[in-house]
Amino acid sequence: MKYVNQPKTEKGQETLDKIILEAERLFSEKGYYKTSIKDITKAAEVGIGTFYIYFEDKHSLYQAILSEYGHFIRKTIAESVRTAETRLEAERMGIETFIRLVRKRPSMYNVIWQALYVDKKLFVDYYTKFSENYIKQILIAQEKGEIIADYDPEALSYMLMGITNFIGLRYAIFDDQTDLDPILDEVMDMLVNGIYTHNERME
Amino acid sequence: MKYVNQPKTEKGQETLDKIILEAERLFSEKGYYKTSIKDITKAAEVGIGTFYIYFEDKHSLYQAILSEYGHFIRKTIAESVRTAETRLEAERMGIETFIRLVRKRPSMYNVIWQALYVDKKLFVDYYTKFSENYIKQILIAQEKGEIIADYDPEALSYMLMGITNFIGLRYAIFDDQTDLDPILDEVMDMLVNGIYTHNERME
Repeated sequence: MKYVNQPKTEKGQETLDKIILEAERLFSEKGYYKTSIKDITKAAEVGIGTFYIYFEDKHSLYQAILSEYGHFIRKTIAESVRTAETRLEAERMGIETFIRLVRKRPSMYNVIWQALYVDKKLFVDYYTKFSENYIKQILIAQEKGEIIADYDPEALSYMLMGITNFIGLRYAIFDDQTDLDPILDEVMDMLVNGIYTHNERME
Repeated sequence: MKYVNQPKTEKGQETLDKIILEAERLFSEKGYYKTSIKDITKAAEVGIGTFYIYFEDKHSLYQAILSEYGHFIRKTIAESVRTAETRLEAERMGIETFIRLVRKRPSMYNVIWQALYVDKKLFVDYYTKFSENYIKQILIAQEKGEIIADYDPEALSYMLMGITNFIGLRYAIFDDQTDLDPILDEVMDMLVNGIYTHNERME
């Protein structure tokens, strides 16, 4: 995280983690603009001076949180799909991992989507980085003949992110009790068979 | 719109439209919480008292805007797909109409997605209503044998909304210059053929 001065001690790391945790909660509950640095330090039970050891201002703390989300989600998904033998298997594992992450940490959606008006560039960068990562995987799968080669990888990456994010919205944010297996089965069926009955195959 | 006292004169309607237009702009640029009623009336060049003729408070104005978005988008899409002869045709027309709407009025995304923390229930209601509308169309298409009957219409509605919203994000919010036709072709190819080359057909 380039937006944060990394602590040098374990105690420092604990303090930083607490600041980030409380900021995440407050940004999610009250929104970025309505949350002051004072609100954050008060909730984290540290002095204002401590805040400035790690962050230049509220905006850099927000950037740090978004950057951490991005790394955390990509890393967790990459680890979860390591054993996948096909792109199809990897896709399912990746989507499942993402939805389970959101179930554990639903505030991520609130905090990320706020970027759209807090700092549009940050929001664009956030999804562009995800897309770039996805494009790499799609290109490999197209090279291997697993994904249809005609598809533009970028457009496809946004379709896949859209499916994952809205399935996450419904089955992690709106309601997190539904059994995920039948939902994931349906997502994969759709990615394998499309949605229509009488269709002409492309190849 | 039940959150607004409808004006009785043309002049009143103009005033109300101006208040809504400026509120939409301010909510999108500064966010809901950082925008005061005074900011809105000042931008709309009306007195504070005029605001209270139409709205009880800032929250009911926000609800009115979201409700208007929902009606406006659903109505415009319904009109655009009226001539479609198949569900596949309707799907393409609907997605295209949505993306062109967002290109004209990109602030809609900012304003809608803020609801996630301004008023989560409002956000859930917003997408639930869209989903219910989609489900009706999916059920008709399943009845007619156009969409694969095994699919759960609700999960499918969120996948389709996800695709549309993220394709809109990329090709209306991030960049609105890309030619839409090849993108829509790819979305429809994906919905017809899936994304994988060697797949087992479901039926």
